[in-house]
Amino acid sequence: MKNGTVVRILGNILVVESLFMMPSLLISLFMQENDTKAFIITILVTALTGIILSNFKKNKDNINAKDGLAIVALGWALMSLFGALPLYLSASIPTYIDAVFETVSGFTTTGATLIANVEILPRGILFWRSFTHWIGGMGILVFTLALLPALGIGGFQIFKAESPGPVAGKMAPRIRDTAKILYLIYFTITLVQVLLLKIGGMTIFESFIYTFGTVGTGGLAINNNSVGAFSSSYLQMVIAIFMVISGVNFSLYYLIYKGKFKEAIKDQELKLYIIIIFLAVLGIGTNLYMTNYSKLTLSFRDAFFQVSSIITTTGYSTANFDAWPSFSKAILVLLMFVGGSAGSTSGGIKVIRILVLLKLIKREILKMFHTRAVIPVKVNGKVVQNETVAGINSFVSLYFIIIALSTVAITLEGVDLLTAFTSVAATLGNIGPGLNLVGPTNTFNNYSQISKIFFSLLMLLGRLELFTIIALLAPKNWRRVV
Amino acid sequence: MKNGTVVRILGNILVVESLFMMPSLLISLFMQENDTKAFIITILVTALTGIILSNFKKNKDNINAKDGLAIVALGWALMSLFGALPLYLSASIPTYIDAVFETVSGFTTTGATLIANVEILPRGILFWRSFTHWIGGMGILVFTLALLPALGIGGFQIFKAESPGPVAGKMAPRIRDTAKILYLIYFTITLVQVLLLKIGGMTIFESFIYTFGTVGTGGLAINNNSVGAFSSSYLQMVIAIFMVISGVNFSLYYLIYKGKFKEAIKDQELKLYIIIIFLAVLGIGTNLYMTNYSKLTLSFRDAFFQVSSIITTTGYSTANFDAWPSFSKAILVLLMFVGGSAGSTSGGIKVIRILVLLKLIKREILKMFHTRAVIPVKVNGKVVQNETVAGINSFVSLYFIIIALSTVAITLEGVDLLTAFTSVAATLGNIGPGLNLVGPTNTFNNYSQISKIFFSLLMLLGRLELFTIIALLAPKNWRRVV
Repeated sequence: MKNGTVVRILGNILVVESLFMMPSLLISLFMQENDTKAFIITILVTALTGIILSNFKKNKDNINAKDGLAIVALGWALMSLFGALPLYLSASIPTYIDAVFETVSGFTTTGATLIANVEILPRGILFWRSFTHWIGGMGILVFTLALLPALGIGGFQIFKAESPGPVAGKMAPRIRDTAKILYLIYFTITLVQVLLLKIGGMTIFESFIYTFGTVGTGGLAINNNSVGAFSSSYLQMVIAIFMVISGVNFSLYYLIYKGKFKEAIKDQELKLYIIIIFLAVLGIGTNLYMTNYSKLTLSFRDAFFQVSSIITTTGYSTANFDAWPSFSKAILVLLMFVGGSAGSTSGGIKVIRILVLLKLIKREILKMFHTRAVIPVKVNGKVVQNETVAGINSFVSLYFIIIALSTVAITLEGVDLLTAFTSVAATLGNIGPGLNLVGPTNTFNNYSQISKIFFSLLMLLGRLELFTIIALLAPKNWRRVV
Repeated sequence: MKNGTVVRILGNILVVESLFMMPSLLISLFMQENDTKAFIITILVTALTGIILSNFKKNKDNINAKDGLAIVALGWALMSLFGALPLYLSASIPTYIDAVFETVSGFTTTGATLIANVEILPRGILFWRSFTHWIGGMGILVFTLALLPALGIGGFQIFKAESPGPVAGKMAPRIRDTAKILYLIYFTITLVQVLLLKIGGMTIFESFIYTFGTVGTGGLAINNNSVGAFSSSYLQMVIAIFMVISGVNFSLYYLIYKGKFKEAIKDQELKLYIIIIFLAVLGIGTNLYMTNYSKLTLSFRDAFFQVSSIITTTGYSTANFDAWPSFSKAILVLLMFVGGSAGSTSGGIKVIRILVLLKLIKREILKMFHTRAVIPVKVNGKVVQNETVAGINSFVSLYFIIIALSTVAITLEGVDLLTAFTSVAATLGNIGPGLNLVGPTNTFNNYSQISKIFFSLLMLLGRLELFTIIALLAPKNWRRVV
């Protein structure tokens, strides 16, 4: 086998995935619902395939950049294809393609669903569906990296390809250690939220489900009305605040843990993130108060919940925002593109990229007055490398080109422009619901099978930040020629 | 006077503008309609103000970059404020703000109108309204430059700020000579089209009007149905082809004139421009044939006309494209952003910038395989300077940020998202009509006075490619600090 090492790692990923399915199996056994067989078969098939693949003969000890890309892209594809089996085998979802869509939506933390009545599904399936958010949020490969021996340059490539944002923040010299720190923070936030939701009156099952959806910035719910099913403003606020928390760069929590609190709150990306949230809540809250809603507190509560849900690309809702006035909807659409912070579990373009773009624009304006000046772009006092700037610019351009061409493609389904546009933005940005026919009270089930496959690809593209997948689809000769 | 030299040049611009009003006055006198008085007053006021300003004392012989920006931004503002007088004084348009909107729409070659029934207006006014397209297309400052003595670095700055595209193509060592060559090409194309339209059965008046709208890529019409008023497919095709011609970089025509035909047709921007037009016509033509239209030739004729009208940011229409299926409309919206070529009279982002972005994305993908490689970006075999790349990236980012924030602002009028979005895209891109409430059968007259002022600003921003105006609005200290 030419790429034995790559295949071995893919095998390891599947073994890890089968282990991740165990809690769902236990719940299924405990609840005695009709999904037990589906989990047993899936776990056996996934584990067995994983073991076979992980016993391929190594062709080298270290993997290179190319291998790293292949592992990430194929790893995520395999995870989704196997992860979809329980949903399909338990007949919770009618076709395998639908099950793959729903699973990709889970792993990529999108939260777009095909299921109109989710409340009738067995508990084991619901748990697995939401658990994929938790796994996908931090990344199964980062998790696998923490277990595997050092992998050379490819290890960093994997880490970089899977973690959101233009620069992968190493917290420790070794990737393994960084991965462990990240998961420790992730665990802590998760447990705190579960506790807070439990205190607020949710069942332990609900607490876990909605925590997975929140900290993974996923958005799949087990109530047809999403978080709107809970009228308690305490519960809504806990979720809203934890969405905001999950949209922050996790390395800042590590800084705080290390006692560098001042350094953490001075972070420029964090500041811009907070400013955007503040302005959006102010705009929407006022707009709702002056038009649809009569109560001031309710206006701002719904505004805050929806803003934090959309900017972090979670996708939960407490109100049918599709029925809000244009101004509020326009702000939400804008937030769909902003996304959360780099190094968080959120999707979208990410605040750091917007920050760098704003600084580039400011520099360009300065240059009009000082034609010969060389002005470096700095973030947090450090000069941003030209290569990083080029990467950010290319990312944003490609993001909009994909949005544009995909929207054109989706209009072939006959839907209106706003539906097509927000469907694409909501899947590529890993958000979930969009507007009109894919608004919060609707599902993606009106689309054809081909479109569902297409949206699944968009969700993966978004989660892996475009280039990992695009590179794999690039003409073969690009890999050789320079 | 601290900036005597700047004021003198602004004065010259007004004098030139008053001369440009003469043909309209002559038509008005000849037709004996009720607009003669309006023209006489305007010409006197404009010329007098111009003469007074141009007699200010020089404070220096050469102007610098800062002066250049001020001249361009203020020059265009003054041109519009004085140019609006005939429309207002003749009562062709009810308020002065409306008249300014219509005139800015003219000069910036946008073609958005507030007038539902244009056919009742006096001929002199109609001529002036369309003639502003012709003046604004190539730029009144470029024209003034051809008359003025050399102005040092600021002369190039003016030329650069007014000519569309990331790199101002000098055809001759001296800006004056380049300006003269440009106007010579412009004259030639204009005369050929007038002749061809006259041969096809238009009156000489109509021939001039529609030629101004075409070669300036403006789009204001003197028939309520725009070019749809002419059923002759010959006339429609002449206009469609000349729109495409006017969207090409004029320096290519100079190359052809110099006998370098091969070099001209090898131009990469030209190739991409033609490819985009071809694909768009193919997509829309097929879509129309399979849905709305039964006739194949009509489908492709309407498709070609509308594609060339939108990509060149002209805005003429032969059909109500707002009623076309989503797929066709989505392609048109996409073309709104592409725009024509640099160094043409068209607006939008421009094909050259899209080309460079595509090459940057390709480079980024290549880098994923060759992490250490330094790969230059080339256009037409020449390396694009890093500064130019940074400028292009900043331009495109700023373009989308302005679109996004302006759309949010416009939704405060209560219009739907698609109306708001395409209103902004159509004015910033200097196109004219959008979709829904600003579709080809509607006008911008439903908007409030404040929004009309806002749209006027967007049109100027688009025509002067953002930075000229933004720089002038930038905080004062940016001009000092680096």
